[in-house]
Amino acid sequence: MVKRYDSDKVKALVHKIYKAYGFTEKQSSAVAETLIYTDLHGIASHGVQRMVMYDHFIQNGKIRVQSKPEVVKETDVSAVVDANFGLGQLNGIYSMNIAIKKAKAHGVGIVTTRHSGHYGIAGYYANMAADQGLIGLSSTNSRPAMLPTHATQAFVGTNPIAFAMPAKPHNFIYDAATTTVPQGKIEVYRKLEKDLPALWVAKDGNQEINDHHDTADLDALRDPLSNVGLTPLGGVTEETGSHKGFGLGIIVEVFTAILSMGNTSTEISPENLQVGPSQSFIAIDPAIFGDVDQIVQRFSEYLQQIRELSAIPGKKIYVHGDKEALAYEDRKQNGMIIDDKTLAEVIGIADRLGVKHGSLAMD
Amino acid sequence: MVKRYDSDKVKALVHKIYKAYGFTEKQSSAVAETLIYTDLHGIASHGVQRMVMYDHFIQNGKIRVQSKPEVVKETDVSAVVDANFGLGQLNGIYSMNIAIKKAKAHGVGIVTTRHSGHYGIAGYYANMAADQGLIGLSSTNSRPAMLPTHATQAFVGTNPIAFAMPAKPHNFIYDAATTTVPQGKIEVYRKLEKDLPALWVAKDGNQEINDHHDTADLDALRDPLSNVGLTPLGGVTEETGSHKGFGLGIIVEVFTAILSMGNTSTEISPENLQVGPSQSFIAIDPAIFGDVDQIVQRFSEYLQQIRELSAIPGKKIYVHGDKEALAYEDRKQNGMIIDDKTLAEVIGIADRLGVKHGSLAMD
Repeated sequence: MVKRYDSDKVKALVHKIYKAYGFTEKQSSAVAETLIYTDLHGIASHGVQRMVMYDHFIQNGKIRVQSKPEVVKETDVSAVVDANFGLGQLNGIYSMNIAIKKAKAHGVGIVTTRHSGHYGIAGYYANMAADQGLIGLSSTNSRPAMLPTHATQAFVGTNPIAFAMPAKPHNFIYDAATTTVPQGKIEVYRKLEKDLPALWVAKDGNQEINDHHDTADLDALRDPLSNVGLTPLGGVTEETGSHKGFGLGIIVEVFTAILSMGNTSTEISPENLQVGPSQSFIAIDPAIFGDVDQIVQRFSEYLQQIRELSAIPGKKIYVHGDKEALAYEDRKQNGMIIDDKTLAEVIGIADRLGVKHGSLAMD
Repeated sequence: MVKRYDSDKVKALVHKIYKAYGFTEKQSSAVAETLIYTDLHGIASHGVQRMVMYDHFIQNGKIRVQSKPEVVKETDVSAVVDANFGLGQLNGIYSMNIAIKKAKAHGVGIVTTRHSGHYGIAGYYANMAADQGLIGLSSTNSRPAMLPTHATQAFVGTNPIAFAMPAKPHNFIYDAATTTVPQGKIEVYRKLEKDLPALWVAKDGNQEINDHHDTADLDALRDPLSNVGLTPLGGVTEETGSHKGFGLGIIVEVFTAILSMGNTSTEISPENLQVGPSQSFIAIDPAIFGDVDQIVQRFSEYLQQIRELSAIPGKKIYVHGDKEALAYEDRKQNGMIIDDKTLAEVIGIADRLGVKHGSLAMD
């Protein structure tokens, strides 16, 4: 049975944990906000579930608690940020706020950042812009995971692209890895002891791995330049469009690592404390093109037309952001969902740090 | 056997044909340049092969020879262009040149255009920026072709995304439909009487069509809101990433039709002379982020690392732009390739317009 918890109480606990690490009041509040936002929108893999990984990195110094992101180069429409290995979420909020400020003043803001950390869901930052009436985009690179078309070694990251745009009844939010599935999806299937669908994971370039018992190969997914990798969106042959997902992964690399002169996917490793992912944050004010109300109205009608197309029997047509909006309604009303293992991990962190916690149950 | 022709002679003939339609010297030269560029880079589907379609549209008034694109709204970093139903290539060159000029002056230029025409390959315009040391992007929408995930009606266009970036030994050029394959690929397979690979085309949302004899269904690909459509990149199930290609198609719609208040994919029809595709053109100067030579050097090294990864036996790893560069070398040395049918069509147009033509053979 799914267990429900009071999101305000969980947020307060997360806040106290980050305060205990040494983050400021404002920083702790921001981190708690991003993690709870993610869980409330149904993306459990990137919510409080990630706290145990961040805890590990805070303890071993990969995430530097006292670090602050800083602008190292700037124009009216752009900035390069060095995150100095601070917490990814704090860098993300800082950098997207710069992009938003520039977009409001000059129409466009493009920020590229280096030496950041894992920043959760890219869609959170894209949506920060959309919540202010702007178009937002964000991407991050990651350690090697994707097999370039015809390659037998994982090299490019899962490199998600997030895009958000104001719409009614809620923002359009696209947030997707440029691999067929992200790493987290493989982990979920392994935990559930389910075999993997066709062509999520390939060995030696084009040999499918489906058996969840194939521990050695699936563990090798985490090795740099491994002969086991995630397939690009479009699979492993040019016939099915493999080169398209692969190319989109490279484009993400340009906006994140290449323009910031940060670490490329292939240089990133969880064990190396001197490298960190590179990220990008773009905001565009639709007002530079026309009347924003008219643009948003037209876009909302276009999306509604799609929702109302004929569908495969038993299936529903969702546009991007619909499922997350439904999850949010459910969680706000019935409580957020945390699995037992994750809850135990969070409580364990709190206990170790001497953070007091009462009941997290719904009232 | 593949027949080879002198590209300079073919270009001169194309130039004369466009002059005969009533285009100016400069316009005719520009159109000839884009079409021959496309054939020389090995993309035969979008080169002189398209002249017969344009000829049809010029004759019936869908392409208005005397029209000129005009800026209807502008800021330092943006412009909205109304192409007034002129030739797509002329709108593309005009609009990308505005984006380039703005990027050189202010770092970024984003141009969105409405009421354009079929503009050939998106990569041509993206590469115009890369040839001037900038990052370039271009997209176009098109008549309905893509099945939104779970929908049984084609609604979104094939909506390609092109991205170009300076690199050595040649520019990186990504240019790909957000469907698994573009319409042209289906036509090529039908002409060759080859069955279609898995999941290029689906009926009623998720029923594969592979048999090239299935004329009624494959012809229905061209009908608006047809129950036969092209699959999004990622196929027709969420498991394989269908929603990703579908979402990228919508993002293209935003930058092209929504921001320009032009025609969305679903409104576009070859038969309707009062609508035309919407397009986008973006240029970004990498100098706003850092030293351009260093950035290009780092990117070129990154691409070279990919080329040198281990490959599936018998396969080669290409990065985007490599195949086109190889085709260009071959065609420049050995002559451009035109199939007999296309050549007869072009000669037919020339004869009808009273345009004289000598031999097109290699000397």
